[in-house]
Amino acid sequence: MIIVHHLNNSRSQRILWLLEELEVPYQIKAYERTAEGLAPKELLAINPLGKSPVITDEDLTLAESGAIVEYLIGKYGNGKFQAPTSGPGYLDNLYYSHYAEGSLMPLLVQKIIFDMVPSKTPFLLRPIASMIFSNLTKMLLMPSFPKHFSMESIDKHLEKVQTGWFAGGEEPTSADFQMAFPLEAVVTVASEMATPAMVKYVERVQSRQVIHFLFHPFADLCLQIKFRPAYKRVR
Amino acid sequence: MIIVHHLNNSRSQRILWLLEELEVPYQIKAYERTAEGLAPKELLAINPLGKSPVITDEDLTLAESGAIVEYLIGKYGNGKFQAPTSGPGYLDNLYYSHYAEGSLMPLLVQKIIFDMVPSKTPFLLRPIASMIFSNLTKMLLMPSFPKHFSMESIDKHLEKVQTGWFAGGEEPTSADFQMAFPLEAVVTVASEMATPAMVKYVERVQSRQVIHFLFHPFADLCLQIKFRPAYKRVR
Repeated sequence: MIIVHHLNNSRSQRILWLLEELEVPYQIKAYERTAEGLAPKELLAINPLGKSPVITDEDLTLAESGAIVEYLIGKYGNGKFQAPTSGPGYLDNLYYSHYAEGSLMPLLVQKIIFDMVPSKTPFLLRPIASMIFSNLTKMLLMPSFPKHFSMESIDKHLEKVQTGWFAGGEEPTSADFQMAFPLEAVVTVASEMATPAMVKYVERVQSRQVIHFLFHPFADLCLQIKFRPAYKRVR
Repeated sequence: MIIVHHLNNSRSQRILWLLEELEVPYQIKAYERTAEGLAPKELLAINPLGKSPVITDEDLTLAESGAIVEYLIGKYGNGKFQAPTSGPGYLDNLYYSHYAEGSLMPLLVQKIIFDMVPSKTPFLLRPIASMIFSNLTKMLLMPSFPKHFSMESIDKHLEKVQTGWFAGGEEPTSADFQMAFPLEAVVTVASEMATPAMVKYVERVQSRQVIHFLFHPFADLCLQIKFRPAYKRVR
């Protein structure tokens, strides 16, 4: 039985979506971060890096979203969600399945940290911290955000692909399972950055994510699914 | 002709190493960051995200290290550097080829930024900035670094693989072309984090990187190779 070891405020959502699409039975085991926002020792026992998502499948333990997505599609896909092996669809899938975690997520995480730190700074230092971090955001992140979300990149690509999936096929591929999470995060948390094409994409993804808890903000998700038994889809 | 568009202080080194190993003719076009540390408009014209590495191969433009490595091995490898298609080697290659950019590099970049910011802060605010960022490093990064470099993860794996390559084969695979850069960075820039197994690994990689400039710190690399003509290996 596949177990998805889910840490609150982490990136397991994409794995849950994929498992639902694959209609493979699985269990979710949820873990709460410590007061310091770190992984609890129970999760460290599964993945010493304390990162999530991490799955166990019999005697295999595998972390890293991109690897998990490829592994699950390869082992349980029966040909479903396979990216083209050549042509533009192959390259688009290759690019976006690496871009999601290699470029886009680090940028989002950076922003979350910069936004969060001042509020965690001692009261008297907070104005200075706010100034430093708003400058950091302006200097380091803001020049990148519009580029990443400009008509030149994601948005332009989403406008281009007729089917609405990143590799241009009739069904999502690993690129979509990788990209859905950061795009959902942008549309939900940084909506001022979201473009119509992104909103449409997230709606398309969510219309397939019939499991109710996937719509909830991540912080809530964990509590709801804590030690939830294997989920059976109702559709 | 393949052109590697190389931005100084970026991650193209791994692509140069791979192209050397593939013995494919290529050109390096180097770009200097602006005073703000951003990509110059010449690079933005090639890759709107201003990220490097990005390659052009005839009419194809491809960014994202992980995607470029897979593409080059697939198109020019003639069976060389292929990862196993099943078994532990398959999973190790899958994991580390995503881990390098999905987890390890973001952590290193985070540290570089946290170390850099105070020095860029107005003189009078510098002591406060230093305090804030050393706390950030202590809270956010230090708990992760030892985990990532502990015997539990990279180090343990490097100890395990007899051949010294991440997928356990006789030749490097995409996992190595992805991992070599961050490990080289750690051994060079954050040597206090480096373990004997990592140092040995970087030495193994560098013993294959016979091109002299690959040994130089990245900041120098760019100037040396600026508009360098197609490189012909001397070994």
